[in-house]
Amino acid sequence: MSTAESQNLPYYLKISQQLRQDIISGRYKVNDKIPSEEEIVKRFGVSRMTARHAVTQLVNEGLVYRVHGKGAYIANNKVERSLNSLKGFYDDMKERGLNPVSQVIEFTRRLPSEYEQHKLQIQKHQEVYDIHRIRYINDCPVGTQKLVVPAHLVPGFENVNLATMSFYNYLNDIGRPLKMAYQHMEAVLAPEIARRLGISENMPFFYLERVSIVEGNIPIELLTSHFRGDMYSYKITLTDNNAG
Amino acid sequence: MSTAESQNLPYYLKISQQLRQDIISGRYKVNDKIPSEEEIVKRFGVSRMTARHAVTQLVNEGLVYRVHGKGAYIANNKVERSLNSLKGFYDDMKERGLNPVSQVIEFTRRLPSEYEQHKLQIQKHQEVYDIHRIRYINDCPVGTQKLVVPAHLVPGFENVNLATMSFYNYLNDIGRPLKMAYQHMEAVLAPEIARRLGISENMPFFYLERVSIVEGNIPIELLTSHFRGDMYSYKITLTDNNAG
Repeated sequence: MSTAESQNLPYYLKISQQLRQDIISGRYKVNDKIPSEEEIVKRFGVSRMTARHAVTQLVNEGLVYRVHGKGAYIANNKVERSLNSLKGFYDDMKERGLNPVSQVIEFTRRLPSEYEQHKLQIQKHQEVYDIHRIRYINDCPVGTQKLVVPAHLVPGFENVNLATMSFYNYLNDIGRPLKMAYQHMEAVLAPEIARRLGISENMPFFYLERVSIVEGNIPIELLTSHFRGDMYSYKITLTDNNAG
Repeated sequence: MSTAESQNLPYYLKISQQLRQDIISGRYKVNDKIPSEEEIVKRFGVSRMTARHAVTQLVNEGLVYRVHGKGAYIANNKVERSLNSLKGFYDDMKERGLNPVSQVIEFTRRLPSEYEQHKLQIQKHQEVYDIHRIRYINDCPVGTQKLVVPAHLVPGFENVNLATMSFYNYLNDIGRPLKMAYQHMEAVLAPEIARRLGISENMPFFYLERVSIVEGNIPIELLTSHFRGDMYSYKITLTDNNAG
């Protein structure tokens, strides 16, 4: 959220924002104690109730955990996304009470590369939209995504506000809900993306390539993402009943 | 395999080993052409058939791909493991025709940490085996694994040769086949592990934590792994029908 917006926030959210910045900046280590409610009361001049709400907000975000009678401690502060779900970034973050925002830094319509023709099963004359976005959670840049979509499958796509709307919700709206996705994952360095996000060039990233499929076995998107290793993690429940 | 062993290798495997070293060292980029069969014949003084076998070996390993009439090119040389399967490292590599070897660098029996008690659902007096291994594919160190197993669940475990046998096969043998696993994944730097593997400290790693479950909903292992980002990748087919 912008500074302008943050001025309209309730006190407890302003405080949790400040504490969150302290956590994200690396001032604390995992399992370090954060300031007690008494300390927050003194430091910010707020009521005990407001201090408690601020900490609860961080607990709800998974950034800290409470130990009964002792205080609140830094959790492993990585967002943990599930690989057992097709949920998109936007909806997933919203459901956690986080504030997902995207900055669209490129939006073009062009002919597909050979690789894109192959992955999206389209002909070389069939144009695609190519959208680059920086993804933010609560003001913090967490990664970049490049979304390539066959233009003939997404009427009116130029009018969709991809800064604040989920692409997958848009697909529901046009009657093409997701059926499945093939995802490839790597752990990489990505110095150019790190520079763009304003972080260390030695940051490890998850590199993800996803091809998503809608009804009729039609590939609808080729999505390549880089997500920061210090802010992102994945979980998955594996069984032998899954597809192979 | 050790140098001693490699002296007993057929010629084509010696050559593929040399070419593999060139590839792993980063001499080539993805889609670069590797030496032609004629060039291999000249460089190593072998027959055309041997040169072809050496290249075929690399094709089978997924390190290079052939283009008809043109030659062989560097593939994205990362092993791609499936997250839709419970298969272990050893069996998975064997099925690809690769040579998985593990070096056991620690094997202890001790009391569990609080975290291990929690994850393995055991009491503080119930001992665990704690096994550290370095994992190799075709001579190349690809990662480390720390396996913690409740001792009372694995009779005779001290006699299992974990350098060359799959833990999951052993579980089948003792009538405790895997039912499912909960896996957590991160992208991290791990300078100490990189040093141990003899690679750059800036290497990004997959960090994995897996709790595997057998019949009766019993946790059988807490497995923490670091796998090199330059040699490892994952794929997954996502559907909304999965659990979670």
